[in-house]
Amino acid sequence: MKRRQVLKGAGMLAAAAVGVRAASETEATAPAATVPAASSPSPPIPVTQRLTQYAASINLADLPPAVRHQGARTLLNWMGCAVGGSRQDAVTHALAAVKPFAGPPQAQLLGRRERLDALHAALINGISAHVLDYDDTHLKTVIHPAASVMPALLALSEHRHIAGPDFLNALILGVEAECRIGNAVYPSHYDLGWHITGTCGVFGAALACGRCLGLSTEQLTWAVGLAASQPVGLKIQFGTMTKSFHPGRAAQNGLLAALLAQQGFTTAQASLEGMDGWAQAASREHHWAEVTDALGSRFESALNTYKPFACGIVTHPAIDAAIQLRNEFKLQPEGIAHVTLRANPLVLSLTGKRSPQSGLDGKFSIYHCIAAAIVFGAARERQFTDAAVRDPRVTALRSRVEVQTDAHVAAEQCDLDVELTDGRRLTRHIEHAVGSVQNPMSDADLEAKLRDLASDALPVARVSTLIDTCWRIESLNDAAAVARAAAA
Amino acid sequence: MKRRQVLKGAGMLAAAAVGVRAASETEATAPAATVPAASSPSPPIPVTQRLTQYAASINLADLPPAVRHQGARTLLNWMGCAVGGSRQDAVTHALAAVKPFAGPPQAQLLGRRERLDALHAALINGISAHVLDYDDTHLKTVIHPAASVMPALLALSEHRHIAGPDFLNALILGVEAECRIGNAVYPSHYDLGWHITGTCGVFGAALACGRCLGLSTEQLTWAVGLAASQPVGLKIQFGTMTKSFHPGRAAQNGLLAALLAQQGFTTAQASLEGMDGWAQAASREHHWAEVTDALGSRFESALNTYKPFACGIVTHPAIDAAIQLRNEFKLQPEGIAHVTLRANPLVLSLTGKRSPQSGLDGKFSIYHCIAAAIVFGAARERQFTDAAVRDPRVTALRSRVEVQTDAHVAAEQCDLDVELTDGRRLTRHIEHAVGSVQNPMSDADLEAKLRDLASDALPVARVSTLIDTCWRIESLNDAAAVARAAAA
Repeated sequence: MKRRQVLKGAGMLAAAAVGVRAASETEATAPAATVPAASSPSPPIPVTQRLTQYAASINLADLPPAVRHQGARTLLNWMGCAVGGSRQDAVTHALAAVKPFAGPPQAQLLGRRERLDALHAALINGISAHVLDYDDTHLKTVIHPAASVMPALLALSEHRHIAGPDFLNALILGVEAECRIGNAVYPSHYDLGWHITGTCGVFGAALACGRCLGLSTEQLTWAVGLAASQPVGLKIQFGTMTKSFHPGRAAQNGLLAALLAQQGFTTAQASLEGMDGWAQAASREHHWAEVTDALGSRFESALNTYKPFACGIVTHPAIDAAIQLRNEFKLQPEGIAHVTLRANPLVLSLTGKRSPQSGLDGKFSIYHCIAAAIVFGAARERQFTDAAVRDPRVTALRSRVEVQTDAHVAAEQCDLDVELTDGRRLTRHIEHAVGSVQNPMSDADLEAKLRDLASDALPVARVSTLIDTCWRIESLNDAAAVARAAAA
Repeated sequence: MKRRQVLKGAGMLAAAAVGVRAASETEATAPAATVPAASSPSPPIPVTQRLTQYAASINLADLPPAVRHQGARTLLNWMGCAVGGSRQDAVTHALAAVKPFAGPPQAQLLGRRERLDALHAALINGISAHVLDYDDTHLKTVIHPAASVMPALLALSEHRHIAGPDFLNALILGVEAECRIGNAVYPSHYDLGWHITGTCGVFGAALACGRCLGLSTEQLTWAVGLAASQPVGLKIQFGTMTKSFHPGRAAQNGLLAALLAQQGFTTAQASLEGMDGWAQAASREHHWAEVTDALGSRFESALNTYKPFACGIVTHPAIDAAIQLRNEFKLQPEGIAHVTLRANPLVLSLTGKRSPQSGLDGKFSIYHCIAAAIVFGAARERQFTDAAVRDPRVTALRSRVEVQTDAHVAAEQCDLDVELTDGRRLTRHIEHAVGSVQNPMSDADLEAKLRDLASDALPVARVSTLIDTCWRIESLNDAAAVARAAAA
C-alpha cells in the first residue's frame, strides 16, 4: 500500500511537471489512501470480500421459508411481465438489431418462438420483462430486483444445467446483493442520475450466475469487478425504449462477468469500495454497513413487492378502493352519480390528466384509473389500451369523478366516496394499498396477474403449466423447465 | 418544461409522504430545470444535437490533409498493437468465455486465425489492442482514442461494406467526438475514478459506426443516448486484465448502440448534457464548449500521439537519449564505464526498480530501460520480456547506470551522460521526447513499431501488406481489406 501511495503522488506531480495531467495513466493508477472525490472515508471492512464470501456460502436449505417463498413469488411475477411485454416495439427492435450477430439457439425468448444464444437472450428477455413497468420493486431503493437477475439466470439455466433449488438460491442471492448495494449508495447514486435498476442489477446478475457456475470466492470477486466496470442506465432515458434496455443489458453484462471470471479474467479485489472503484465513481455517499450487516439473517429480498396495477404507485390506493367497492356492492357504472377521491396532492400532480386520449395517457389520469377500475374491476395492461381509454362507459363515468387533494393524507392512503343514483353513499378508506409491503398481493393475485399478462402470447394450458412450474421451482430437477414453459 | 418541474417537485413530496423516496420511479423522472447534482448549470446549447448534426455532416473531402494523414497513422499504430497483443492471456481468456455464445464468423480476430460475429470481434480485438498499454494517446485527457473506435469500426466493415474514405472519415469523427467529450468532463470525470478511455470511447464507437450505417441525425442522437447509458471502466482495474476489457466492451457497446438506433430504438434527446444524463451522473464539471466550439475547424484528432517505447511515458526522454547516443556513436555496452541520468524526481518514484526480476518489472525500472535501449537500440515489447531483463549484457550495464533527480528538470525532459571506458564523455539533452506532440514519431517509426509488434503473429510479407493497406486507406474500395490483412 505504501508504494502505491507514492506512485499516486508522483503521478500528480508528473502531471504538473509535463503539463499533461495523466500522461502516466498506466503507472499512476494504483489505489491511494485517500478518496478525494467521495464524501465517506474508505470503509474499515472489505465490502467486496464479505459479499463474495457470503455469495459462495449461501445455501437454500438455510434460508427461512418466507424468504424462499418470496423468491418463488418474484419468479412468478417476473415471468408474467416477461411474457406480457414480449410483443412490444422495444423487444422487436432490439431483436432485429442483434439477430444477425446471435450465436447458437441456446435460450428461449419468453412469450415468443425464437431462441438465441444465452447472452443475447438475457438482453432481449430483460427488455421484455421491464418494458411494461409492471415488474417487482424494492421500495427502499426503487430497484426492480428481478429485472437483471432473472433474465441472466434463466438464460444460463438453458445453457448449463441448474437444479431448481440452486436456481432459487442464486435468485435470492442476486436480489439480496443488488438491493444491499443499492441501499449503500441510495439516494445519492439515484439522485446523480443513475438508473439504479441497471447499475446495481448487474451485480445481482453477476453473483447469481457466478454462484450457479460454481465460481470460487476469488472468481466471484472478479465477477463483481467486471460488473462494477459495466454499470448500465441513466434516468434521462425514462419514457424511452432505452429504460427497458437498461436491465436487459445489465443482465447480459452480469452473465458475461461471471463467464469471464470463470476463465480467470482478473480484476481488482475491492471493486465496490476501493479507491477509484464503483462507489467512489458513481455515488457521493456510501453506507457500507447496508451491504455487510446481518448477511444471512436479515433479508432485503423478503421486502420485494409486486404491482397489482399497471400504472404508477400513486394511483394504487384509489384503484384498490374502487375495485373493493365495485366487487362488494356489484356496482354498475350507470348506477353511479358521482365519485369523489380525497388523496395526497401528489396524485393530481402526477396523474391529473382530465381527458386522456391514449392508453399511455390513461396511466397518467387518476380519473381514468378510477373509472376503468369500476367498469372492468381491474387496472391491468388491457385497461390502459387506447380502446379502453375511449370506451364510452369509461369516458362517461370518468366525467363524474372528482378529486380533492389534502396534504394530510399520506400518498399511500386515500378515501373514496361513491354516490349512487339511488341515493346511497358508499365509502372506503385505504390505509395501505394492495401490493405494498404491509398489504402484499396474495399468491392468487399474482397468478391472476400472470394469467392476464400471458394470455395473448400463450395458450391457456401453457399458462397454467408456467404458473405451476414457477411454484415448483424448489423441486425442479432442471430449472430450464421454467423458460421452456414460457415458449410461444 | 414547467409541467416537468411540477412533476419533479411532486415526486419528492411523494417520497416524503409515503416514506418511500421513489415509489413513482416511472412518473417522476422527466427532466427539471435545475441540476442539483452537477456543479455547472445546464448548457445554453444543445450539445448532443450539435454533435450529432456534425456527425451527420462531416466529410473526408473537407478535412485538412494533415488530419486525414493523422487518421491513417492512428489506424496503422492501432493495428500493430492489436496484432501484437493477440496472444496475451486477457485475449485468450475472453475468447474462451464468449466463444460458446458467438454468432456467425463475420469478422477477423486480428493476429489470430479465428473469426467471430462482429459484436464479439469488437470486444476481443479491443482487448487485444489495449492489453500492452502501447496504443495511441490523446495527452490532454489520457484517452486512448483508437481503443474503442477502431475495433467497432473494423468489425462493422467486415459485416457491411464500407469504402476506405468512409471508414477513415468515421474513424476521425469517432476520435474527434470522444476526445471532445473527454475534454468537457476532464479532469473531474477521471478523478472520480472512471477509466476515461472506455467511458468516452463508447461515444466515439457509436458515432463512427452510426455514420457508416448511414444513420439520420435523429438516429445518431439515439446512438449517443444508448452509448451514454453504457459507460465502461473504472481506474481501480488498472493492473488487471479488466483494464483492457474496458475499451473492448466500449467498442462492442458503441457498435450495439448504432445497430439499435438503426432499428428505431429510442432514447432521450440530450443524453450527454440533460438533467439525469451522462455528464451529470459521471462528472462534477462540464465544459460544454469543448464539445461544440470550432467543430470542423479545430481537430483534437490531429493531436493524437503514439508511444515509441513499450513502457510509461516518464521513461521516454531517457530512452530517446540513450538510443540517439547508441546509434550516433555505435556504442557497445562493454565500452561504457558509467551512465548518469539527470531527470525529474518522478522518474525514480514511478520507475525506480533497481533490480527488476521480470519483464513487467523492467517497465518500472529506469535502469533497465536505459540499459536495454543501449544494448538493443529499442525499448519495445521484446525488450521487456523476462529473458531481456535477465540478459547478462543488460544486467551488467544496468549496474553502471545512476539516476540523479532534479525537480527543475521537467518530466518530459532529461540529460543523459555516458562515460566510455576510453575516457570519452558523451551527453545528450532531450527537450521533447520522441512520441510527444512536439516531436512525433515519424511514419517510418510507426512502421518499424508495427513490424516489431506483428512479427510473431504474421509472416513478414503479410506484415508489409498490412502496412501498405493501412497507408492506402483513402483509396481502398473495401475497408475490410485492413482486417483481412491482419489474419494469422
